Amino acid sequence: MSESSSVKSTNVIWQNSRVSRERREDLFNQRGATLWFTGLSGAGKSTVAFLLEHLLTERGFKAYVLDGDNVRHGLNSNLGFSDNDREENIRRVGEVSKLFADAGLIVLSSFISPFQKDRQLVRAIHEKAGLAFMEIFVDTPLSVCEERDPKNLYAKARRGEIRDFTGISSPYDVPENPELSLQTQGEPLESAMLVLDYLYDHDIIRA
Amino acid sequence: MSESSSVKSTNVIWQNSRVSRERREDLFNQRGATLWFTGLSGAGKSTVAFLLEHLLTERGFKAYVLDGDNVRHGLNSNLGFSDNDREENIRRVGEVSKLFADAGLIVLSSFISPFQKDRQLVRAIHEKAGLAFMEIFVDTPLSVCEERDPKNLYAKARRGEIRDFTGISSPYDVPENPELSLQTQGEPLESAMLVLDYLYDHDIIRA
Repeated sequence: MSESSSVKSTNVIWQNSRVSRERREDLFNQRGATLWFTGLSGAGKSTVAFLLEHLLTERGFKAYVLDGDNVRHGLNSNLGFSDNDREENIRRVGEVSKLFADAGLIVLSSFISPFQKDRQLVRAIHEKAGLAFMEIFVDTPLSVCEERDPKNLYAKARRGEIRDFTGISSPYDVPENPELSLQTQGEPLESAMLVLDYLYDHDIIRA
Repeated sequence: MSESSSVKSTNVIWQNSRVSRERREDLFNQRGATLWFTGLSGAGKSTVAFLLEHLLTERGFKAYVLDGDNVRHGLNSNLGFSDNDREENIRRVGEVSKLFADAGLIVLSSFISPFQKDRQLVRAIHEKAGLAFMEIFVDTPLSVCEERDPKNLYAKARRGEIRDFTGISSPYDVPENPELSLQTQGEPLESAMLVLDYLYDHDIIRA
């Protein structure tokens, strides 16, 4: 049994916040939601997420980027890149995303998250809590990501210096039914504006 | 070596958000901060925290309660109550508190957090990130907590049905230098108003 599927907590009683979700949405003029950016390393997930955070913030909305690299310095610093650790990594950030969305924020979660079942788990966590969840596939081909190689990781992976590297020595499950696919290569602003339109269209934010 | 002190993540590069902390504070009219409520089970930590969340929200500030019981249903559902698991429990919620404070929110973290060294770790995580952290000791005597016993846990602990129960079969380190001690028993509103005044006085929120 994997660590993440075992439930050890007992004698725990759920406590509800005194501030209702409706009241929070009313005051924030937005609905809490998780936008889950998935895609290969170098696909541009974080670039689009940070740009979108900027666009939302300047329009007066409350947004925050949870980023794979950043979270691994803190919350998940005790996890590596084995299949089990990747699963626990995504489970934890999925739960943290849920807390942010519950707090009324639009959280932009940017994680390779290569396995369909892990992304499905995160979606289920949100649906169970009645919170909006949108999977955004940053659909940049492997060849382009490898050509960019902004962190010199593909080169290391090809030389065998990094194990379990997504796209090279570890699989990436292409999203089956993402709410959005971003195929615009090279123009992050165009992608960010597409997502922004989507948020207006789906009543997450209002003009 | 405990799980929380081992660092396995490699090939990780820190990415900064494009939205500066200053800009966020400007737009939110508040400083991100973590208020860490510590004390025995039944001391009234969550009651005060939820009340304060309500008071802050209705004044237009952005606040959110992270609660031991709530978090254990999700993020920390794979942790129990052994010393190691308690340490990892507090480490994780400390890191999550930091993320919320970095996002510009006032996070009200309500956890028994019995060990001084764990609370010190959470403080250090915030100080390293340049974020405000305030330890609030909800100083209700054991006898009062046990008399209240709202979840019937002390009775179970006395009968030996719960192991490692703080105050009964597991120690509670009294905070040495908390920013605030709340000794008002029975009147949560009084305690919440004390904290509110503290936040005004220390420029976390502005009238």
